[in-house]
Amino acid sequence: MNEKLVQVFSPGSIAVIGASNSFDKLGYHVMKSLAGNYHGKIFPINPKSDRIWNLASYPSLEAVPGDVHLVVIAVPARMVPDTLHACGRKGVRGAVLITAGFREIEDDGGRVLEEEIKEIAGQYGLPIIGPNTFGFVNLSSGVNASFTSEFSRIERGGVALISQSGGICHLCGFLAIEQRIAMSKLMSLGNRCNVDFPEVLTHLVEKDSSTRVIALYIEGLDDPRRLLDAAKSLRGRKPIIVYKAGKSEKGDSASRFHTGSLAGNHAIWKGALRQAGILEVTGTEELLDTAKAIDSCSLPGGTRMAVLSGQAGPGMIASDALEPAGLKLSRFSEATQRRINDLLPPIAIRTNPVDMGPAWYDPKNIIAILKAVIDDEHTDGVIFLAMYASANLNLAEGMVEYMKAAHPFQKPVIACFTAPPGIWDEPIGALDRKKGVAILPTPERAVQAMANLWKVSFLSNGRG
Amino acid sequence: MNEKLVQVFSPGSIAVIGASNSFDKLGYHVMKSLAGNYHGKIFPINPKSDRIWNLASYPSLEAVPGDVHLVVIAVPARMVPDTLHACGRKGVRGAVLITAGFREIEDDGGRVLEEEIKEIAGQYGLPIIGPNTFGFVNLSSGVNASFTSEFSRIERGGVALISQSGGICHLCGFLAIEQRIAMSKLMSLGNRCNVDFPEVLTHLVEKDSSTRVIALYIEGLDDPRRLLDAAKSLRGRKPIIVYKAGKSEKGDSASRFHTGSLAGNHAIWKGALRQAGILEVTGTEELLDTAKAIDSCSLPGGTRMAVLSGQAGPGMIASDALEPAGLKLSRFSEATQRRINDLLPPIAIRTNPVDMGPAWYDPKNIIAILKAVIDDEHTDGVIFLAMYASANLNLAEGMVEYMKAAHPFQKPVIACFTAPPGIWDEPIGALDRKKGVAILPTPERAVQAMANLWKVSFLSNGRG
Repeated sequence: MNEKLVQVFSPGSIAVIGASNSFDKLGYHVMKSLAGNYHGKIFPINPKSDRIWNLASYPSLEAVPGDVHLVVIAVPARMVPDTLHACGRKGVRGAVLITAGFREIEDDGGRVLEEEIKEIAGQYGLPIIGPNTFGFVNLSSGVNASFTSEFSRIERGGVALISQSGGICHLCGFLAIEQRIAMSKLMSLGNRCNVDFPEVLTHLVEKDSSTRVIALYIEGLDDPRRLLDAAKSLRGRKPIIVYKAGKSEKGDSASRFHTGSLAGNHAIWKGALRQAGILEVTGTEELLDTAKAIDSCSLPGGTRMAVLSGQAGPGMIASDALEPAGLKLSRFSEATQRRINDLLPPIAIRTNPVDMGPAWYDPKNIIAILKAVIDDEHTDGVIFLAMYASANLNLAEGMVEYMKAAHPFQKPVIACFTAPPGIWDEPIGALDRKKGVAILPTPERAVQAMANLWKVSFLSNGRG
Repeated sequence: MNEKLVQVFSPGSIAVIGASNSFDKLGYHVMKSLAGNYHGKIFPINPKSDRIWNLASYPSLEAVPGDVHLVVIAVPARMVPDTLHACGRKGVRGAVLITAGFREIEDDGGRVLEEEIKEIAGQYGLPIIGPNTFGFVNLSSGVNASFTSEFSRIERGGVALISQSGGICHLCGFLAIEQRIAMSKLMSLGNRCNVDFPEVLTHLVEKDSSTRVIALYIEGLDDPRRLLDAAKSLRGRKPIIVYKAGKSEKGDSASRFHTGSLAGNHAIWKGALRQAGILEVTGTEELLDTAKAIDSCSLPGGTRMAVLSGQAGPGMIASDALEPAGLKLSRFSEATQRRINDLLPPIAIRTNPVDMGPAWYDPKNIIAILKAVIDDEHTDGVIFLAMYASANLNLAEGMVEYMKAAHPFQKPVIACFTAPPGIWDEPIGALDRKKGVAILPTPERAVQAMANLWKVSFLSNGRG
């Protein structure tokens, strides 16, 4: 399975079964996602057309000349068994089964049909992503095998988001575009015919060098132990974070209808996730913020934080947020404090949290303060807060210029660069995410993500 | 004071003392905020120039012909006493004192100077906003009396945000531009010479018809009882929400340096705020989300919520979030359930939370479902979740078209319309915020804001 998944996620050729020229068919949107973006061979399959999306189309999979690595299937449920047989005969490496109407529907026929396709898949050793999925996007290799072409706009990076729900992928994918969360993969597993969390987890850890952090959205699993065992055996190799839904009774019953699994008792999940070295988060934004921070930053060696703020208020709310999150303000060494005092006049608070306001006009001094606290052996990480004001207009640019030449920070720096749209977007967009700085929207979210970095560092070491 | 503040916030003429043509002076940026935007008379004052920002400038306030309602002062601290005397002699109605260097600095001279200006202000009955403030923006009357011209980009609406910190105003003001939070006022009170929270609160409730909700950011007050008494006497007239910082010991000491007040014990604050009918929130985004929801929505009569989602996953996490927030899923009446069953095929969950996915292609059906649950007497509010997908492309437009002709919803509707940037921005931007629908970025934040609407409804009635 693991070998086949490599070809499924980075296929040399893709056939779209149910490809279409009409906007109201999912096969249209899958073609839109692939055509003009994907650099391998695309074979649209539809017995009723000659050309689809300006490509030669084929009446059947059999009629396609040469190898097909991946098929994307968007035909009615009743046609799926025959389609899978055709895939097996053709020797395709794997399928994305977008079609819904299997065990997630009320009608018992759905369950029976799902059993049937599971058996066919087993017969040919065919990995199936889905059914009841929007597909997947592999940003690392430029493959958007989904019905949502806009996901190709997500930046390429180290976050793999694997979800039981397509809706959550859409929520997170669009937030990722807006908040510049750089992804390697975005995937909904749907009903998980035979490609489930453990299979994807193993693939991402062992075979996918572009993925640095794995974020999972889970509703309910038939056999949670398989996932937990997989996570345990992979422990310490790549951070895994989970957002687990279905906490309430009603949520649980919704899960049954959604992708056919009960969500289960949350207290048991909580303990089990921790024992497997997985960090549990409790919201969509926390999932994305934490993944972004892990993708960009070093993990902290402890809980002692420096808060550097250009305005006292944001520094104060960050300081407030530290303790409930399990972090604390560091006490600078005398040498560090002297360096800061040399850089800042005595009209603002210079101990931690540092009010850098008086240095705004000179980005060099701001960077010198940042360097001083990173060098301080009593500090494990930095919360850096800059609200735009006329006086600090050049700060973002100065920071990015400095980072270009500098080595990546060896301690995590989580920063807010908050400005009206259009003012700092360009320099901040040019900040290399491998330099050790993650940008988040508010001081509170910066602190929360920093706390999670510490927890990840802790859990990965098996100390959880 | 209350009468004078009306003229301060909507002045017929403004003098800028310390107006400048050089970018690195605050007086330059104040002129930038006013020139070309403000429709009253502007008098730049600077003894060294003839023209500033292409306007005739004056050597002194005395030299200005006619009445001056508001002065904005951006001169060095030592020059402030004489400047205030000049203001008093000229009969100006009030001053924005941007200058810093008063009781917030370590040097004892700052405290002495602040006592002096307080006395001068008292002598003339001159309201002073500041010192140590970025100024204020009155979006209702088009006055940006601050050094941050970009705040004029905030939409005009019903949220008044009054902050002890200019940095928090910058954070919130920029988030407001991005997230379309429509404001009436944005103001930092700085050291609160003689215009403090109680004065502004009274003004906003009694004299400012454009303000529908008052959001306060407080660090610490010398006399918190004055604020609490003011809030109590105004109780039930306009919702007041507070984000209180300085919870930690360190935060408290930062407050001392920031605007010269100790933050005080948080447990005492917590109880006192509730007794005064004020809702306490615990983060920047919660402050803004809640204010936006209050500005747009009716208050709910209870805790029973309908969750309408186009994709099961987001509906599930919203359902999960209800209970911890003090809300619950409503049980639809039989008539409502029949109406929904007529509109949705039995391939998705149709009881609460409702999976509206199968109706995506027809916005009319979606709106019919929304209307059905609003009409249901067992439902107090609606969480409406739509993640863009090709199938529901026209939903946002359909919704906005419908709302144009419809009466405002009489129950609160908090919605997510999540799409890649550019796809739904235009229709969603055209949604009239007075129609009873607030748009927030994630299901969890929608639920949190709904819970706060219920708390506000509860607190305003004196049941807190």
